[in-house]
Amino acid sequence: MEFKDIVMQRYATKQFDGRMVDEDKLFTLLDIIRHSPSAFNIQPWKIKVVSASRIKASLRPHANDQSQITTCSHLLVFCANMEFESVIDKVLGGMEQSGVPKAMVTQYGTMIKGYIGSMTPDHRMGFAREQIHIALANAVNGAKSLGFDSCPMGGFDPAAFSEVLFLPEEYVPVVLCAIGYAADTAPVKWRLPREEVFF
Amino acid sequence: MEFKDIVMQRYATKQFDGRMVDEDKLFTLLDIIRHSPSAFNIQPWKIKVVSASRIKASLRPHANDQSQITTCSHLLVFCANMEFESVIDKVLGGMEQSGVPKAMVTQYGTMIKGYIGSMTPDHRMGFAREQIHIALANAVNGAKSLGFDSCPMGGFDPAAFSEVLFLPEEYVPVVLCAIGYAADTAPVKWRLPREEVFF
Repeated sequence: MEFKDIVMQRYATKQFDGRMVDEDKLFTLLDIIRHSPSAFNIQPWKIKVVSASRIKASLRPHANDQSQITTCSHLLVFCANMEFESVIDKVLGGMEQSGVPKAMVTQYGTMIKGYIGSMTPDHRMGFAREQIHIALANAVNGAKSLGFDSCPMGGFDPAAFSEVLFLPEEYVPVVLCAIGYAADTAPVKWRLPREEVFF
Repeated sequence: MEFKDIVMQRYATKQFDGRMVDEDKLFTLLDIIRHSPSAFNIQPWKIKVVSASRIKASLRPHANDQSQITTCSHLLVFCANMEFESVIDKVLGGMEQSGVPKAMVTQYGTMIKGYIGSMTPDHRMGFAREQIHIALANAVNGAKSLGFDSCPMGGFDPAAFSEVLFLPEEYVPVVLCAIGYAADTAPVKWRLPREEVFF
């Protein structure tokens, strides 16, 4: 399937049929998501994968009672991982292990730590949220490329989600992506014309 | 090309060979980008497409003198379009014209205008920046799917870019994406392992 067709055919599925996405496809999607790019390769994300019906039912009232939450196969809860320093240490270690020259890793580490150190908490959160939306795009396109559907969702109560999912306070829910097989049909896709977007 | 391979093979190209992406491929990429999803379908973006060498040369000092700016084919300057109300009116008109039932358009319009009305300026900007990172993901994947390369770039001076490009104040530069043909090779792609990301 051409990437252009993936982008044109995916849509925010409002109703899933309850079938489960099999583990092989799920793991391929998770690999697509975790290979998303992020600024400085920081990967400031933790993603809770919810499949148990009981938990989905507990979450639904905290997401405007939307039926995607309970009819989907898996609900991905994209969280900002606010422990930037510990993620960076892992990234630096991983780069070195995978053969990036040590001098380059050191230079990168100095630069990135300086940048992170200068950020306010609000700036950190904004930065993490932006990067997470790159991963979200890969999630919705990845689902369609693997033959199933998805629904990105911003309308939910992050504090209630944290409570239901027992999230540690350094993981902050940012956006949801329900995945599964659609039981509805794609609406007309309307977008601003080319001349309204590009100049 | 499978979407998974696109995600695995794309990388932030640091040096392009100066060849131009032809108009047919460029326009396909622009169509991929403008069909990106956004919360409430708001599409809060305006994208300046820079191809003139003289302008790229004027921008380069304001992007840490990075050579991608002048060696790329086109530089896409993703701007937040802060005039949400006027975009929403266009989206509502477009939805109705393309056959979405009027009652549904009206209901959506009331909901979205209420939501937008409740946002502070900072909240609006954060929201627009997040949606733009979805379009950015489609840009880098779209480029690879069409046989060329890209480099997303956050390190630049937005005020200086606005001045060089004579941007109206309601268009705020958020992130860049240089596109073209790579003259370098992909570095090792390192990402956090699956168990560090998903839980």
